[in-house]
Amino acid sequence: MGDFDKALEEKVKNTEGIIKNFLPKEEGYQKKVLEAMNYSMLAGGKRLRPLIMSESYQMMGGEEMSLVEPFMAAIEMIHTYSLVHDDLPAMDNDDYRRGRETTHKVYGPGMATLAGDGLLNYAFETAMKAFDVAGTDSDKTGRVIRALRILADKAGIYGMVGGQCADIEAEGKKSSTEDEIIYIHEHKTAAMIESSLMIGAVLAGADKNTVDKLEKVGSHVGVAFQIQDDVLDIVGDQEKLGKPIGSDEKNEKTTYVSIHGVDKSREEVKRRSEEAVDLVKEVSDNCDFMVELIEWLISRDR
Amino acid sequence: MGDFDKALEEKVKNTEGIIKNFLPKEEGYQKKVLEAMNYSMLAGGKRLRPLIMSESYQMMGGEEMSLVEPFMAAIEMIHTYSLVHDDLPAMDNDDYRRGRETTHKVYGPGMATLAGDGLLNYAFETAMKAFDVAGTDSDKTGRVIRALRILADKAGIYGMVGGQCADIEAEGKKSSTEDEIIYIHEHKTAAMIESSLMIGAVLAGADKNTVDKLEKVGSHVGVAFQIQDDVLDIVGDQEKLGKPIGSDEKNEKTTYVSIHGVDKSREEVKRRSEEAVDLVKEVSDNCDFMVELIEWLISRDR
Repeated sequence: MGDFDKALEEKVKNTEGIIKNFLPKEEGYQKKVLEAMNYSMLAGGKRLRPLIMSESYQMMGGEEMSLVEPFMAAIEMIHTYSLVHDDLPAMDNDDYRRGRETTHKVYGPGMATLAGDGLLNYAFETAMKAFDVAGTDSDKTGRVIRALRILADKAGIYGMVGGQCADIEAEGKKSSTEDEIIYIHEHKTAAMIESSLMIGAVLAGADKNTVDKLEKVGSHVGVAFQIQDDVLDIVGDQEKLGKPIGSDEKNEKTTYVSIHGVDKSREEVKRRSEEAVDLVKEVSDNCDFMVELIEWLISRDR
Repeated sequence: MGDFDKALEEKVKNTEGIIKNFLPKEEGYQKKVLEAMNYSMLAGGKRLRPLIMSESYQMMGGEEMSLVEPFMAAIEMIHTYSLVHDDLPAMDNDDYRRGRETTHKVYGPGMATLAGDGLLNYAFETAMKAFDVAGTDSDKTGRVIRALRILADKAGIYGMVGGQCADIEAEGKKSSTEDEIIYIHEHKTAAMIESSLMIGAVLAGADKNTVDKLEKVGSHVGVAFQIQDDVLDIVGDQEKLGKPIGSDEKNEKTTYVSIHGVDKSREEVKRRSEEAVDLVKEVSDNCDFMVELIEWLISRDR
């Protein structure tokens, strides 16, 4: 195991512990929805968004982890609710995720709908606990307000929900334009990575110019990740990916790769990856892990 | 038409206009979800929660309507998302609401799920526009923070979502206890009325003692409203109600009335109604309309 892998494993474990601290206790007449929420939150995964947020906070000089921790838990709750609702029979109708039954398979689609609602709402309740950490410090309170607004903006109709809508609309439609495809990647995937990078920086007191650059980093990383996903769907190793390749072609889905071909798509992934890394280096001298994380995220073969 | 009815009609119309100002423009690749959100928001209704909020704000001396308006729109968005999700095939499976097709009948259950998510998220984005109104005034900013936390708390797993979960759990279960029934009424219905009263007062600068009393008012009004609903289900006039009576008995649902009988239930409605009115009079000398509104809400025969 390389140094990066070891460091990543340690950081994921640490993030997992932080998230668990913010989960609701399973008690009261509403116990069932709390169980369903926690079931979905404890399905595992790399906790990438809260991890990126925490790295961004520390990279920009943030030293008070208790200020960023509520937001780390909140962004994972938002990510999780979107998966729970996405998996519903009314949406993608998936029975399994990461080898475990999806929330609606265990608790029924009504309770899973409610659990998703509960998670989205609780994400805001949780993030607002950062106001207690800020206390009477008006500078810190201002940062928490800016971070909250980014959290809400990037998750909603001008962020992730917007991307999900456009994605549903594009399904089975062979005529998607490149603009539309980039819109979907930027909103469905990149918005939550942008949000993680931006919130970390804002809470650490970064200026607007820095936060704008990190937004651009998140955009590049998210879009490059998705184009790489489409490339792997054509040239990937089915065993490493753990899912069948060629599914986009089968679904007649227009992708960046079906428009531009594999070679030009790989170039685009490389271009975005390099620009993201350059921008990170511009905003911080303390960015070694972040750079490795970005490169690991994008240049995967699985 | 009496003076109260005329005043109510005028205020409802005014509230309607305020809400419309905060709805998203139907444009962009995510246009469909915006259409579905606005379809559900424009289904009519008395706009009771934002109306109560605005009345509470003014009753407590608030004079800057632009500070409370974002919260008025936000609470109606939260109320509306809860109806959209409640009507889904996975939940109550209702095709009609107020004589119009429900959102999922028009836009499909996937898009309706997303529209509900979009509304809940946009409610927070919208409420946070009050920070722009507060500007650099730290006192007003503090009020907006307190109001936001009440909004989130009363809508979530320790408020409305909690009540919805307990209600689903109680369905078809003949053995509900009185505690459980009151829990459901207090959370599913009363929490959003408490929230409206409390947020109005907090934004107007009311002290904690006043806000606590208004929370109690909301609790009494919400619970009394629901017990009255159960009473009408037994003794009501089917034509005035616009729905068949006796449905609770048919559904084998334990209600406050099935435990205590009609007479004791009517007494309880009266007791709670009087206590609510007394509390309102304790916190404000400028409460004539609020008192009439509470009495109108509870002692309805339809």
